[in-house]
Amino acid sequence: MEVIRSFAQLTRHLETLQVRKRVVVVCPQDPHTDYALNRAVEKGFAELILISNPAAWRRFRVVRDYPEHVRTLSVKDPDEAARQAVGVVKAGQADILMKGIINTDNLLHAILDHEKGLLPKGKILTHLAVMETPTYEKLLFFSDAAVIPRPTLQQRIEMIWYAIHTCREFGIRRPRIALIHCTEKVSAKFPHSLDYVNIVELAEGGEFGDVIIDGPLDVRTACEAVSGDIKGIVSPINGKADVLIFPNIESANAFYKSVSLFARAEMAGVLQGPVCPVVLPSRSDSGLSKYYSLAMACLTTPSWK
Amino acid sequence: MEVIRSFAQLTRHLETLQVRKRVVVVCPQDPHTDYALNRAVEKGFAELILISNPAAWRRFRVVRDYPEHVRTLSVKDPDEAARQAVGVVKAGQADILMKGIINTDNLLHAILDHEKGLLPKGKILTHLAVMETPTYEKLLFFSDAAVIPRPTLQQRIEMIWYAIHTCREFGIRRPRIALIHCTEKVSAKFPHSLDYVNIVELAEGGEFGDVIIDGPLDVRTACEAVSGDIKGIVSPINGKADVLIFPNIESANAFYKSVSLFARAEMAGVLQGPVCPVVLPSRSDSGLSKYYSLAMACLTTPSWK
Repeated sequence: MEVIRSFAQLTRHLETLQVRKRVVVVCPQDPHTDYALNRAVEKGFAELILISNPAAWRRFRVVRDYPEHVRTLSVKDPDEAARQAVGVVKAGQADILMKGIINTDNLLHAILDHEKGLLPKGKILTHLAVMETPTYEKLLFFSDAAVIPRPTLQQRIEMIWYAIHTCREFGIRRPRIALIHCTEKVSAKFPHSLDYVNIVELAEGGEFGDVIIDGPLDVRTACEAVSGDIKGIVSPINGKADVLIFPNIESANAFYKSVSLFARAEMAGVLQGPVCPVVLPSRSDSGLSKYYSLAMACLTTPSWK
Repeated sequence: MEVIRSFAQLTRHLETLQVRKRVVVVCPQDPHTDYALNRAVEKGFAELILISNPAAWRRFRVVRDYPEHVRTLSVKDPDEAARQAVGVVKAGQADILMKGIINTDNLLHAILDHEKGLLPKGKILTHLAVMETPTYEKLLFFSDAAVIPRPTLQQRIEMIWYAIHTCREFGIRRPRIALIHCTEKVSAKFPHSLDYVNIVELAEGGEFGDVIIDGPLDVRTACEAVSGDIKGIVSPINGKADVLIFPNIESANAFYKSVSLFARAEMAGVLQGPVCPVVLPSRSDSGLSKYYSLAMACLTTPSWK
């Protein structure tokens, strides 16, 4: 397959493959979510189960415009709506779970419930995002801007596995994964940089298959060859990273927010780990960003399925 | 004075005030530093003392073009060059210290020397940077992308003082200072968010004078009013931050590197704390960035002088 290098290519790819996923959405009564759902149904890659407060139905353009592709469930309480959505996935009636304007913590509570939730025992929950900006020649994946504050070595290895799996679904044969730090030096003052040494060694030993993993690198050295040249850094990433693994949530989040704002980058993101991809946008994400996130989820399957 | 909202205004301001600072430069034998020094001398706001390896002199355009504004000291060993530069400042012969291509650690070693260095007892050394990008209507200061890995409450308070002082020198009467985190929630899981509560309380009590300080805020809420509106966040920063105080070095550095690369932002930065401003660019900074950093240093005086 051809490598998907932009969000436009992503949605075209879903059309070409005639992908059609069943998406259950919790409390989608905000205009940005409605926009995203409308476009996805219009493109043909989503069918919807919407769970919302009965008073909110009149606000949904997608219900009005595409009644044949939408099933609605009226539930008054948002927590109950979250539980019902999780139940729909468990019953095998939906392939993707998406968050509307319900509070993130309340939805995560239902997803993480030990008995009735969606996260298999031993799996970690982590956020993988992808950005498109005119100043980078391809899509750039990064993790974790939203869930794990300070990944352990084991969590980081899982994050890398999820990223590799998703890269393959985007047609990237040999993903280049940069382990991000503020310098290229390993130092005991920064425990994650010690973990990076372990990860690079595992990768060199073939643990992750056909991938290129290097670090610590800073964001510039990971994404711009000339920065490495000036510093005399020789890295197999060579300024062409497909994936940035950030040291902690603060740095990944600063990247997400600042690049979307100042570089006008479009962003998409999904939660990985649960039995189905979960679209969990930030409330301040644009309608387009929610649409691309849904498209990303429609391409993605859990890596361990 | 008029507020300085761009680097062009900054250098014009230095010209108008007929500022002329004495700059001692350690090992400037790289083309980007030479470019920066040339422009500063041309604009008239710098006179130079260059300390370098004798074999390198022929590479300096500034020595050839402006011999009357340049004094040269031939020193073979970079460590010795650093010690001599620090000595020149201590002897009152220079107002600013600038790094060329010497290793940062070696220069910092000389600056931080307890007996012969430049950092007064009890002062902290911290990095303050400022960015200009077409997608933000003014200059945006931020700290600390280069020196303090995880600031303590006391260090953070000092960082804020330095930033306030520098904002005033840029003509910002009432700086808006955003304390950055990945969400707007305070949580014991993130100790810096607890420090933010203390800092906001100090500010409300008048500790920092006429400033606006708020946090935790994420980068978007700090710099874009509409993001706050969507989230229902009411903050006196109102999307118009002048200063971002980052939780740790990884997040500040991710911001620095990603915004300079993907948003084509120009950056300047100085070290604060020593008896004189220290220009300590990253090797991968552009010539223009080194020039603006020098200009920033020429406007700045140590806050406690």
